[in-house]
Amino acid sequence: MEGKVIQEAESQKEFAIGIDIGGTNTKYGVVNHRGEISNEGEISTTDYKDIHQYIDALYEKLAPSIANVGGLEFIKGIGVGAPNGNYYTGTIEYAPNLQWKGIIPMAKLISDKFGVPCTLTNDANAAAVGEMMYGAGRGMKDFIMITLGTGVGSGIIANGQLIYGHDGFAGELGHTTTIPGGRVHWGTGLKGSLEAYASATGIAITAKEFLDERPREDSLLRKTPHEQITSKTVYEAAIKGDKIAKDVFEYTGKILGLSLANFVMFSSPEAIILFGGVIKAGKLLMDPVRKSMEENLLPIFQNKVKLIFSELKESDAAILGASALVWEIKKEKDTTEK
Amino acid sequence: MEGKVIQEAESQKEFAIGIDIGGTNTKYGVVNHRGEISNEGEISTTDYKDIHQYIDALYEKLAPSIANVGGLEFIKGIGVGAPNGNYYTGTIEYAPNLQWKGIIPMAKLISDKFGVPCTLTNDANAAAVGEMMYGAGRGMKDFIMITLGTGVGSGIIANGQLIYGHDGFAGELGHTTTIPGGRVHWGTGLKGSLEAYASATGIAITAKEFLDERPREDSLLRKTPHEQITSKTVYEAAIKGDKIAKDVFEYTGKILGLSLANFVMFSSPEAIILFGGVIKAGKLLMDPVRKSMEENLLPIFQNKVKLIFSELKESDAAILGASALVWEIKKEKDTTEK
Repeated sequence: MEGKVIQEAESQKEFAIGIDIGGTNTKYGVVNHRGEISNEGEISTTDYKDIHQYIDALYEKLAPSIANVGGLEFIKGIGVGAPNGNYYTGTIEYAPNLQWKGIIPMAKLISDKFGVPCTLTNDANAAAVGEMMYGAGRGMKDFIMITLGTGVGSGIIANGQLIYGHDGFAGELGHTTTIPGGRVHWGTGLKGSLEAYASATGIAITAKEFLDERPREDSLLRKTPHEQITSKTVYEAAIKGDKIAKDVFEYTGKILGLSLANFVMFSSPEAIILFGGVIKAGKLLMDPVRKSMEENLLPIFQNKVKLIFSELKESDAAILGASALVWEIKKEKDTTEK
Repeated sequence: MEGKVIQEAESQKEFAIGIDIGGTNTKYGVVNHRGEISNEGEISTTDYKDIHQYIDALYEKLAPSIANVGGLEFIKGIGVGAPNGNYYTGTIEYAPNLQWKGIIPMAKLISDKFGVPCTLTNDANAAAVGEMMYGAGRGMKDFIMITLGTGVGSGIIANGQLIYGHDGFAGELGHTTTIPGGRVHWGTGLKGSLEAYASATGIAITAKEFLDERPREDSLLRKTPHEQITSKTVYEAAIKGDKIAKDVFEYTGKILGLSLANFVMFSSPEAIILFGGVIKAGKLLMDPVRKSMEENLLPIFQNKVKLIFSELKESDAAILGASALVWEIKKEKDTTEK
């Protein structure tokens, strides 16, 4: 009993810093073992053309937060989620949405500046770890996390571990081909990838295509100039009953469901956890997704896989996920040491 | 030094039995820690309508082999690879190619009869474990094994472990959809699955389709009646330079390569190991496979993944893979006990 109290007191004194590097802003927070976030804040990602200036700015901004929890000796480490982040090397490699080009040794730069261990992975992997530790994935050993935002990201948990793959880049499910020879992706040039359809960007493109293909059909979407149509515009029209807008979600759901079926037959997860702005569409998207997924599964997989929304608040999830890497690493090291 | 000798002598005394249950025949062998097979044999799978008769026949046939290695006390266990085998439950579930219907508690039946532990998984998973322990996957922690035979099977190794998934059925990559709305699979009814194209059966279907679509084009394949065309016929025509036959492999390779690219972006393996009768086509198939795979990959994955053929003899691989499950289980248990 006494041991338990001491252990709790010990773990309460330990914190991890979670940093989520986004294309526009970098968000951070100090997280305890229970997944409670304090001392949140953010800095611009785009204001610092030089990576060292960025690191310096991050350090200055975080210094008071670190002091608030008792100083650096109570910080177990820093976890970072970043686009194109590589867990094995701690580098960000050729991230199209960041201005720092080439290979950035981000984990080393942060670790050197702050004087604590830093671990880094891609943002979707971080979110999957966060989901496993604090979210809808608690207690699950096998699930897939799909982020439906501007792009489509993913993180795969199998046998209770994040799948990093041979080189640290596993889980790029948004770039798998769903429709061979289909829509060309604006960034990668690949044809028919999931992201080209199921991202917010893809949904807006589908809406514009449908409007062009069905010129005689009236639609609320015609009130918005083509270039201003977003997935949000489509959602708002769809909930008002607009046929074209509803068809856009039907079409998107069909493609996403097909991809999810393929993912299920790969790793046979207990659940697929969906996350990101696009899931605000709710049933409009999820009903066709589920229907299409089940239709494309072998019978042994049908009606087994849970399709659920993330329980984490979006702003928190990324920070929690990044900070969770710090505890995760500790666990892995413990296992190795045995 | 002495300790090492004793240890080697100890492990030399330990054997695992590997059993590969195929649709037609059941093959078995006694395997030592080095992957050396002795006392091989086989019985018919189809001769025994009653599962208990089958188990009895297997026992009678194996008894002399067990005696040959010193008796049951030297048998660590029995590993079984079987179609639709479930690792978690030890059952064979609704296998379309076996006459025993429903759910067969195969591991329990064998274990009860032989008096040693029995572990079971699906045949492709067994082959992947065999490949990791004795074949081209030695030393690799992340690879995907694809069996191209009558059907398309697969086994996925990530973080040095076989991915079983939540319910033991992970790795049904042959049934993932490659061409949405494509060819209907003769067994599953799913449209455009990989197996519908890249299996020996699929290759024969493609050949017949091409012959029908190009009626004015001469081809060696026209000498064989449609219903007798197999992937072997197509191969033999292709190596003689037959245009339609070569096009069949080109087409098959393009589809298989696309699927492999998707698998790579899922688990980022070090290698894809190909296995089974269809790989006899060699470069005819592999050149278009590699080209198509690279074309459909994100740049961060390009020119990294090894595409290799299994090093194991086909008849041995299944037995080795099944027997390897016995050592594998031991390892997992050891890890848990720590």
